[in-house]
Amino acid sequence: MSEFEDLRKRLGEVSALASTAGILEWDQQTHMPAGGAANRAAQLEVLSKITHELSVSSKTETLLAAAEKAADGLDPDSDDAAFVRVARRDFDHASKLPTELVAEIAKVTTLAHEAWAEARAASNYSKFAPCLENIVDLVRQVADHLGHSGERYDALLDQYEPGMKAADVRAMFDAIKPTSVALVKAIVERGPDAVDDSILKRDFDEAKQEAFGEAVIKELGFDFERGRQDRAVHPFCSSFTSGDVRITTRFDKNFLPMALFGTIHETGHALYEQGVARRYDGNTLGGGTSLGVHESQSRLWENLVGRSRPFWKHFYSSLQSTFPESLSDVDAERFYRAVNKVEPSLIRVEADEVTYNLHILLRFEMETDLLEGRLSVKDAPAAWNAKMQEYFGLTPPDDAQGILQDVHWSMGSLGYFPTYSLGNIISAQLFTQAQSDLGDLSGQIERGEFAPLLGWLRENIHQWGRKYTATELLQRITGKALDTAPYLQYLSAKYGDIYGL
Amino acid sequence: MSEFEDLRKRLGEVSALASTAGILEWDQQTHMPAGGAANRAAQLEVLSKITHELSVSSKTETLLAAAEKAADGLDPDSDDAAFVRVARRDFDHASKLPTELVAEIAKVTTLAHEAWAEARAASNYSKFAPCLENIVDLVRQVADHLGHSGERYDALLDQYEPGMKAADVRAMFDAIKPTSVALVKAIVERGPDAVDDSILKRDFDEAKQEAFGEAVIKELGFDFERGRQDRAVHPFCSSFTSGDVRITTRFDKNFLPMALFGTIHETGHALYEQGVARRYDGNTLGGGTSLGVHESQSRLWENLVGRSRPFWKHFYSSLQSTFPESLSDVDAERFYRAVNKVEPSLIRVEADEVTYNLHILLRFEMETDLLEGRLSVKDAPAAWNAKMQEYFGLTPPDDAQGILQDVHWSMGSLGYFPTYSLGNIISAQLFTQAQSDLGDLSGQIERGEFAPLLGWLRENIHQWGRKYTATELLQRITGKALDTAPYLQYLSAKYGDIYGL
Repeated sequence: MSEFEDLRKRLGEVSALASTAGILEWDQQTHMPAGGAANRAAQLEVLSKITHELSVSSKTETLLAAAEKAADGLDPDSDDAAFVRVARRDFDHASKLPTELVAEIAKVTTLAHEAWAEARAASNYSKFAPCLENIVDLVRQVADHLGHSGERYDALLDQYEPGMKAADVRAMFDAIKPTSVALVKAIVERGPDAVDDSILKRDFDEAKQEAFGEAVIKELGFDFERGRQDRAVHPFCSSFTSGDVRITTRFDKNFLPMALFGTIHETGHALYEQGVARRYDGNTLGGGTSLGVHESQSRLWENLVGRSRPFWKHFYSSLQSTFPESLSDVDAERFYRAVNKVEPSLIRVEADEVTYNLHILLRFEMETDLLEGRLSVKDAPAAWNAKMQEYFGLTPPDDAQGILQDVHWSMGSLGYFPTYSLGNIISAQLFTQAQSDLGDLSGQIERGEFAPLLGWLRENIHQWGRKYTATELLQRITGKALDTAPYLQYLSAKYGDIYGL
Repeated sequence: MSEFEDLRKRLGEVSALASTAGILEWDQQTHMPAGGAANRAAQLEVLSKITHELSVSSKTETLLAAAEKAADGLDPDSDDAAFVRVARRDFDHASKLPTELVAEIAKVTTLAHEAWAEARAASNYSKFAPCLENIVDLVRQVADHLGHSGERYDALLDQYEPGMKAADVRAMFDAIKPTSVALVKAIVERGPDAVDDSILKRDFDEAKQEAFGEAVIKELGFDFERGRQDRAVHPFCSSFTSGDVRITTRFDKNFLPMALFGTIHETGHALYEQGVARRYDGNTLGGGTSLGVHESQSRLWENLVGRSRPFWKHFYSSLQSTFPESLSDVDAERFYRAVNKVEPSLIRVEADEVTYNLHILLRFEMETDLLEGRLSVKDAPAAWNAKMQEYFGLTPPDDAQGILQDVHWSMGSLGYFPTYSLGNIISAQLFTQAQSDLGDLSGQIERGEFAPLLGWLRENIHQWGRKYTATELLQRITGKALDTAPYLQYLSAKYGDIYGL
């Protein structure tokens, strides 16, 4: 029907402008020289202003209303009905935000990213604090414009995980915290030498790491005709369309897991984006449906696949021959145990699976306190360090390894972190279902057959883009809403085995 | 005055959008995976549409009229007066073009770039011909909208070289052709062995070429804090602001001059852009004033500096120690002669200084014939080859080395090539003046002192951005309009010496 085509064309322009901003941000983090920062802020400011104006214009509203009328009576499961539904959600969200606020955030966060990178490099929080002050204020305004029933966090989280509330986050942590804490306690009691990961800190040439990583992700299914990998301070995945999906990574010559599992993690995101149905390219239904589902894909490939015993039964000999000097005395089982060592630590992105969610809980608590004014930006580093002591028994030696470690706040992304824990939980719920549907999944992985798993994910999740919400997907695939049981079973079984609990 | 500030803010948005398109184009030629092409076309289409709408909107027109009124009586040499003058020229140009045509060209040329790259790789003109057909038609429409008094070329050329006409191009070629042809004839009569360039076709490791090139351009003054270098099929320079100027290069392991002089050439463009006054950043007066002046900077550094005897007296020992296996038996003088070998050849960008302008003349004649309908797109390869035979006594073995060699037509840039010859002429006019102003310029170059020359160019040309036209700059600096005499003297003296004429 022409009503759908007209709306699709209009929102296709919005998508094209949004992915243009994505290119500018990708470039900023991978290639832009320092001298380009001021102009980049100006570019993103005007682009976000224009994109927002186009999104909420009366012409868009008229086209949307006409399409809604045309969709009346359509099968709600049809592409057109879903398109109109998601377009309405986007429109209602965008139209609550004043264009000036959107443009201001684009400018402020572009400059804040540079300030954060400098502050982190110098481990000097005071260089970032004024930006953060500004960002917290702007994000509060966003929450208040979007509307909420008492808790700003609800409005912010909803942008990343439609429908989820702060109370759901608390319930989620309540469900996983006892098992997590008990597991950490039992593992710490085994002593630091129960698993030896010193072998991962030997010498690993960067160029060889890069070549090995690329070979691995090609086997997993990353399509380099429709994507690429670059280096960045903070690894990420950007998708501009299913035909152009880019990941970044970073290397530590003396810590193999950083690039290796970072690359597999970002590939998980990229496989999702490359797998979205092509008919959704440049369209409202393109891209992942929520950050929780996105993170479920990255964590599934990074942890449930990439840190599994069968995975290393397949890849270890190739890794060993890539680094004969460093690994000739190490067998696959020792390597498998090393990459799964559990240890309270300072840096979230390097955290093991068991302690990881405590890093998220810390950030969730910090963010709610900052947003509700219970904590000031000035006092935030002390609060961070106190929580690190409480949850991990550790105090960061400097802010670079503490409050400055994550890029998210500089991007204005408060309300985002809980989707990481949500992703962990969903990854296990999906993997358990895939095991049941595919039969011998472990055997397939051990034989290097990744196509069945990727095909299952494409069929059940990737292809649908934003058509179904996270909850709808989980219901369709597993017959249940979010369920923490598979995740807790996975953690207990895996680490019970490794640590002999 | 607030009228100027209001207009500057408005046109600053136009500049930010234009440089955003620049980033998309840079990315397309350096990093974008093949799968991104369709979305890139959509992005550039909507961006060009919006940029054009903003440029010619009634709000912009009102602000411009108010600023013109405010500028009335101002010193015409002031920044504000120049700003309003150039803004008016831009507005009048843009407002003659319908937005749909501008958007259509953006989309068509984005896809044509991919088609050209494929066609060139496969040396298959038929893959590019339909795009070229389309482009010639669109460019004709542009010329007709812009208006001209009988010759479409005038309207097109004016976009790149404000004020220049096809008749001026003919006069320019009439002035330089006799000396060029006589020089080529005399040199060819000396026989192919008068200068031996076989040493340039030895083995030169790419990574070492890259490192040497970067070291050279750092010495010349390229600022890597405000720029970068990447690889691309066709070398180019993109400037997004004086703080972010990017060049590209390409390497041939068995032909040293390609990357070496290509890098120096693009650096000439980049030094111009990095040298524009910072107060013009993101502003109508930012960037180079015309393509002819731009090319004068690239050719000055590439040829008058980079292919000069004093330059190699300074750099040769370092080059030799970079490639000891290939150059230990070659002295600086032999190298100097080799990089200045004159020989009729197929590829413009590898052509020597003496034959170079004949490549431009060929393209100028082809373009005028295509635009006026005297030549069809289908018959163009045959016409190309016939002219190659006429001017060079050569026939391209395939279209990749013939009509498909240049990127320009795929970008819709007809009317652009003559600015290359104009740049050659201006480069000598400026260099001769710099020699006179700086005293011992040759001695400075021989001692590796490039700062005086760069300072002279910054002072006289770079800093002014678009404030003065090419003709105004030449008048201010040399007291004359365009003058071919210094160029002809330079060619005759240099090649007379090398070939003993």
